[in-house]
Amino acid sequence: MNNYAITFKPVNYKVSASEGSTLKDALVKSGLDFDFPCGVIGKCWKCLVKVLSPKIEALQKEVEHLSKNEILEGMHLACLTEIHSNMIVELNMEKNTDYNILQSSVEKNSAIFPLLKKDFIQLNLPSLEHQKSDLSRLKEKLILKNPDYRDLKIGISILQQLPDKLRKSHNKVTVIIDKNEILGIEKGNTSHKMFGIAFDIGTTTVVGYLMDLYSGKELAVSSSLNPQIKFGADVISRTTYANQNDNGLKLLQSTILKLLNELIDDVSKKSNIKRDDIYALTVVGNTCMHHLFLGLTPRYIAAVPYVPVINESIELNASELNLNINPAGRVFALPTIAGFVGADTVAVILATDIDKSKDIKLAVDIGTNGEMVLGSSKKLVSCSTAAGPAFEGAQISSGMRGANGAIDHVCFGESMTYTVIGDEKPRGICGSGLLDIVAGFVKVGLINKRGKLLSPDKFTNPAAENYSNRIITYNDTNAFLMVPASETANGNPILITQNDITSLQLAKGAISAGIKILVEKLEINLDDIKEVLLAGAFGNYMNPHSACTIGLIPKELRSKIKMVGNAAGSGAKLALLSQIEFERADEITNKVTYIELGAQKHFNLEFARGMQF
Amino acid sequence: MNNYAITFKPVNYKVSASEGSTLKDALVKSGLDFDFPCGVIGKCWKCLVKVLSPKIEALQKEVEHLSKNEILEGMHLACLTEIHSNMIVELNMEKNTDYNILQSSVEKNSAIFPLLKKDFIQLNLPSLEHQKSDLSRLKEKLILKNPDYRDLKIGISILQQLPDKLRKSHNKVTVIIDKNEILGIEKGNTSHKMFGIAFDIGTTTVVGYLMDLYSGKELAVSSSLNPQIKFGADVISRTTYANQNDNGLKLLQSTILKLLNELIDDVSKKSNIKRDDIYALTVVGNTCMHHLFLGLTPRYIAAVPYVPVINESIELNASELNLNINPAGRVFALPTIAGFVGADTVAVILATDIDKSKDIKLAVDIGTNGEMVLGSSKKLVSCSTAAGPAFEGAQISSGMRGANGAIDHVCFGESMTYTVIGDEKPRGICGSGLLDIVAGFVKVGLINKRGKLLSPDKFTNPAAENYSNRIITYNDTNAFLMVPASETANGNPILITQNDITSLQLAKGAISAGIKILVEKLEINLDDIKEVLLAGAFGNYMNPHSACTIGLIPKELRSKIKMVGNAAGSGAKLALLSQIEFERADEITNKVTYIELGAQKHFNLEFARGMQF
Repeated sequence: MNNYAITFKPVNYKVSASEGSTLKDALVKSGLDFDFPCGVIGKCWKCLVKVLSPKIEALQKEVEHLSKNEILEGMHLACLTEIHSNMIVELNMEKNTDYNILQSSVEKNSAIFPLLKKDFIQLNLPSLEHQKSDLSRLKEKLILKNPDYRDLKIGISILQQLPDKLRKSHNKVTVIIDKNEILGIEKGNTSHKMFGIAFDIGTTTVVGYLMDLYSGKELAVSSSLNPQIKFGADVISRTTYANQNDNGLKLLQSTILKLLNELIDDVSKKSNIKRDDIYALTVVGNTCMHHLFLGLTPRYIAAVPYVPVINESIELNASELNLNINPAGRVFALPTIAGFVGADTVAVILATDIDKSKDIKLAVDIGTNGEMVLGSSKKLVSCSTAAGPAFEGAQISSGMRGANGAIDHVCFGESMTYTVIGDEKPRGICGSGLLDIVAGFVKVGLINKRGKLLSPDKFTNPAAENYSNRIITYNDTNAFLMVPASETANGNPILITQNDITSLQLAKGAISAGIKILVEKLEINLDDIKEVLLAGAFGNYMNPHSACTIGLIPKELRSKIKMVGNAAGSGAKLALLSQIEFERADEITNKVTYIELGAQKHFNLEFARGMQF
Repeated sequence: MNNYAITFKPVNYKVSASEGSTLKDALVKSGLDFDFPCGVIGKCWKCLVKVLSPKIEALQKEVEHLSKNEILEGMHLACLTEIHSNMIVELNMEKNTDYNILQSSVEKNSAIFPLLKKDFIQLNLPSLEHQKSDLSRLKEKLILKNPDYRDLKIGISILQQLPDKLRKSHNKVTVIIDKNEILGIEKGNTSHKMFGIAFDIGTTTVVGYLMDLYSGKELAVSSSLNPQIKFGADVISRTTYANQNDNGLKLLQSTILKLLNELIDDVSKKSNIKRDDIYALTVVGNTCMHHLFLGLTPRYIAAVPYVPVINESIELNASELNLNINPAGRVFALPTIAGFVGADTVAVILATDIDKSKDIKLAVDIGTNGEMVLGSSKKLVSCSTAAGPAFEGAQISSGMRGANGAIDHVCFGESMTYTVIGDEKPRGICGSGLLDIVAGFVKVGLINKRGKLLSPDKFTNPAAENYSNRIITYNDTNAFLMVPASETANGNPILITQNDITSLQLAKGAISAGIKILVEKLEINLDDIKEVLLAGAFGNYMNPHSACTIGLIPKELRSKIKMVGNAAGSGAKLALLSQIEFERADEITNKVTYIELGAQKHFNLEFARGMQF
């Protein structure tokens, strides 16, 4: 049976699909978060996609339902379109997949001192009186630039190319150097061209920032969903996949490497930079993503006592990972702190300088896990809690990611108002929306301390009365009717169930307990914390007021909250631009004391307390 | 914190030690094979050392346990003695360290300090309280052995195997270390198994010596003709082949690598050692052989101004050359001096210690080329002459290699007697035989000063008369009938033609001119030379008396000639057994001044003079 390559734009994600299968099958296989609300074929007309290539004829059913313009544009229903060749398909991102991948990051002034160096030199000619070897003549000029270059090493493959390169370039070459090693030699003067990419590999999304290693400027950004999603949505399920399948680890690794090559391609095209002029990559990610990227088993992270293979930073050749940059290129993976506090957290510390701060600061990065760091230049403690997927919209009855159609902000006043991403009819609720809703419940008295959604006859707060008619019975318990079926995009009502509230309680209980234990370990009071830095996507979209209302962040800290954008990405960029910052990452790892919450006797008590409102 | 230099006698090995650390720490760091049986402090009294400088007071504990004599001699316990200054310490070699003496024709004591190290460790188990990564737990035990191991690097492929290796071996592993890098990790305790091979790659023959890197013992030797001979008999013809054929260089390289793999196989079978227990290879050879082995073009060695690609030593992974030893194995190619003075000459200097000698010595290694080194610890000069293939039996009418059937020694008295290798009927003459024959011609007056073979009517020396009937006419000139056809193995007569004599004259002229110019460059007289060391196969088989008779070696040096066997091979072995010796090789390269004879104005004059008898 023939297989074809189907490329989904604009995320540039490729899947292989078999002859006669549908675009819907390919989309499902891709793991891209494309909704098929109706679940059946040719019914709801929501799975419209634009087929860029090849041109295919509209089916009778499509002609009947689509406008002339849509047909001319090549719009087709994914559930009806059969695959008989390679195809390029554009997804309607505005409608379906406007992933608010956080690309912005806190810019920080830092001396530029890139991880790799380039030196242009002109060698002396050899003569019968000065029969110096090619390498000696190269080194003699390099040593004039830096006496430490005396002990430079050179790999055999570079050395093999040296004599002809010198002679073809009339002894004018540019030498690429990494600390004590010559990585490559280029003909002529290429010393002004050196670019690098900082990668932030998240469980869900991956972002790459192309940087000019001399000016420090960001030239292009490219991001995508992490295609490992098809092997599992979270780190535990991916670890299970790696453990239980032959070549599972290799497959997970090659999947992320393939994406990185696509992002490398994308940023180089966007910025008109040759891939061969990219020499350095830095990589951050949680410990599992970090391990999968390096082909290290995450098996022992996932089980007690949760140990990673490596914490310290590691450098390797890009060619060892088949990453398509300059053959001399190097990959710099930042260090991790523990099995569940990864290189992304190290990068957050790097970007926010908590480790240098006189004041005590708290950094919180909430995703599937919540990672927290508390401290100052004197001492740093960190922990990780299984925040659960509530904030990412998963396991919530009407939950969805922060894409178009998601209710992202809600305000409970005399009446309730909400906003929807993409300004369209709502399809579900994303994490920040859920946070606002539950904060509203607390505010107007729709739930009690333990989080129970009250029946109207149990209301004690008069403000709750405005919402009496929204309390309905669902699966024998109370539920809150957020949006009636008639007002939603798919004709299904959007509810908040008791289970949804419990999911959120578990997440906020874990995080607030984590914060409490860190405060305790540092032997300080909440008042001593001068700043709370919220990093990561959810932290930047959520309403801090709501976070404090429900007790996710202690109320005492409300005025100290500051959003720091994608601080993990910023840290990766800093390390790329400065060897000093990259080395500081290891110092940070050594400095941070990791607190295993599971080993704290009173964690369960704090957790139970933290679940209350 | 202050650091002090600690010198260990009698091996003269220095380490740097920090203020307040103990002599035990310094000894551990040194890697010298000194035992600490008890493992704790001040218990077993086995780690006694003699502190030569400074004088330090005995501790109470030492006073209690040591004899008065021991205290007066400056004996101290290494585990108790703190370092607060530079120190010179004598180790009790008899008791503690089995320093084996190298079995080679060059007698030399050398401490064994192999290029690679193995350390067996048992890791601590991780726990929820101590969630250290696998690599951290590995390093924490290694650092106890040597504080410098803190900065050990590890390659990604080794790291990928680490977690499962640790768990399958119950946390007991042996780590293979090369300076600052972990090369490999093996399950269980394999620390007693570490072997290496020293290769001497000659233009004509290749020898491999399998060595036990701990005992220093030679376990097996294997040798073979260099199969590159099929691409050319000498370095110039092989260089031409490499230059003029597509993939010529690759073919020459793969040819020698294939042979090395066969020799590896052979010595491992002979000694019943697994190839996987071989971790290190050292390689010496002339500069062209060295370049071909490494896949470096010899093109620029062969043309003015004769520059090699690299002079300094280079280390690489055995796997980069597809050499079948342990996957962690490393190759150490010794440095070269110039385009025609190679790593073999460096190894000769290493083995003969000319660079450390107070007396001025001359080392001569005669093969297709004649390489010479003259000097002492103060200054060393070297040169190379195209000796031509006369001494290897090539381009001589009845010439052959030193194999069975070769006339190897000849004595001209009243009659002529000769010996044949293998005691069989002669088939030809090898280099040492030719040397004796021409020396005999000089002695009995068969040739004149210019080397012309005289007709009997021109004889002036009565001793020549005995050989009148052997002077025959061959191709219109005189020739000497060495063995009549009836007495040879193949039924052909063995002759010495005028051309044969001329070939030898060219060789001896070049070598004696080289010696003269070195003596001149060093601004000494021949009398100042205290020893003449003859290295290499020909140097060891030839009769030194004959060499002086024909003026190959100046007559004044006759009593100073010493045979040093395969000193190049000995040097390769030394470098394999001792990192200190390997590093000394680079010092030697930097110390030796290379004299390009072609650039010496009076070389041709000396050469012409040197051709006379």
